[in-house]
Amino acid sequence: MKLHGYWRSSASYRVRIALAWKGLDYEYSPVHLLKAGGEQKSAEYSRLNPAKLVPTLEIKDPNSGEHLVLNQSLAIIEYLDACFPEKRLVPESPVVAALVRTLALDMAADLQPIANLRVLQYLTGQLQQPDEQKLAWISHWVTQAFSAFEARLQKTAGKYCVGDNVTLADVCLIPQVYNAKRFNIDLSGYPCLCSVVEALEELPAFIAARPENQIDANS
Amino acid sequence: MKLHGYWRSSASYRVRIALAWKGLDYEYSPVHLLKAGGEQKSAEYSRLNPAKLVPTLEIKDPNSGEHLVLNQSLAIIEYLDACFPEKRLVPESPVVAALVRTLALDMAADLQPIANLRVLQYLTGQLQQPDEQKLAWISHWVTQAFSAFEARLQKTAGKYCVGDNVTLADVCLIPQVYNAKRFNIDLSGYPCLCSVVEALEELPAFIAARPENQIDANS
Repeated sequence: MKLHGYWRSSASYRVRIALAWKGLDYEYSPVHLLKAGGEQKSAEYSRLNPAKLVPTLEIKDPNSGEHLVLNQSLAIIEYLDACFPEKRLVPESPVVAALVRTLALDMAADLQPIANLRVLQYLTGQLQQPDEQKLAWISHWVTQAFSAFEARLQKTAGKYCVGDNVTLADVCLIPQVYNAKRFNIDLSGYPCLCSVVEALEELPAFIAARPENQIDANS
Repeated sequence: MKLHGYWRSSASYRVRIALAWKGLDYEYSPVHLLKAGGEQKSAEYSRLNPAKLVPTLEIKDPNSGEHLVLNQSLAIIEYLDACFPEKRLVPESPVVAALVRTLALDMAADLQPIANLRVLQYLTGQLQQPDEQKLAWISHWVTQAFSAFEARLQKTAGKYCVGDNVTLADVCLIPQVYNAKRFNIDLSGYPCLCSVVEALEELPAFIAARPENQIDANS
């Protein structure tokens, strides 16, 4: 199994958490998103993912033995959950799964894609926005997303986002909190979220997956 | 069953397609995203969805009889697929499901959230960008996403996005094509995508779900 990712990419971070959570060993192949205009845009990497985004997971399908090249972090994690169902991240109950996926998508669809590297590059590049506007942009979308997330957690949270089991919602939350802290966003208005994050940050799988613990950290 | 949506919202459009595809009857409750500063921001609607986004589906869970309030279009559709498994939109095979979800997320995570109404409002509002820059923004992200999608389809497509069965990938593609056409984006560079779209546009469920066929069309 080989994961192509970047230490600071939220989507790579999600898959690292899921793999560590399930105790699956893998080789990590760094794709530097900034060097040489972005290694994810190389012809070699584009063959693995025509969207030119990380991560990509190469894996031998445990059922057929076929070599698979998978993209999109949430699709990868749902696949891992189906093939390695121990320590499920998406619960089997359709109702609980809907809550979990809603929280996951709040982070992975309604926050991360708007505030990720390529969008920020467009803002400061094509639109020539100063750093101040870039930071206001990040802060605006984080605030929108975390406010909604906090309101949802007040109904769903136990020790973690949904009850007392780690789920895909937790896997998607932690990378966005890492980003928010990186940009010095004040999280004190989200007490339920902070309490969940504190519990998650103690878990070995979440520690192993942290950006600073990757071989390409600070590269 | 009650769907709170807006005729032109891509995420509402996806759920309308899924409901029609599965032959499920529902009441449609329009939430106007522009009138009065956006009805989705009202206190009443925020109780249904603290993210202040459409759609919301209210449904009586067929297993427990419990009244559920569900948000996030993809979470809703996965729930419908689990509870009403006829005419599945996410195939049971983990490998095929991964392909389907990857294509779905290409549209629903990596395109739609970057080019939706609230982001465009931020560009022309807070960032005071002229209409010309707004259109360039839309065109840029549509081009990025459709180019990757076309490359994927060359490996996965049959009559539809993945083989000859309608899937969640098709459900997520059609609303983004509707938007692209609305902004006069040239689609001739995506022949595989266009061929799939042509086949999908003939299906009664996709016709019933079209924005112009909703009670709030042009409101």
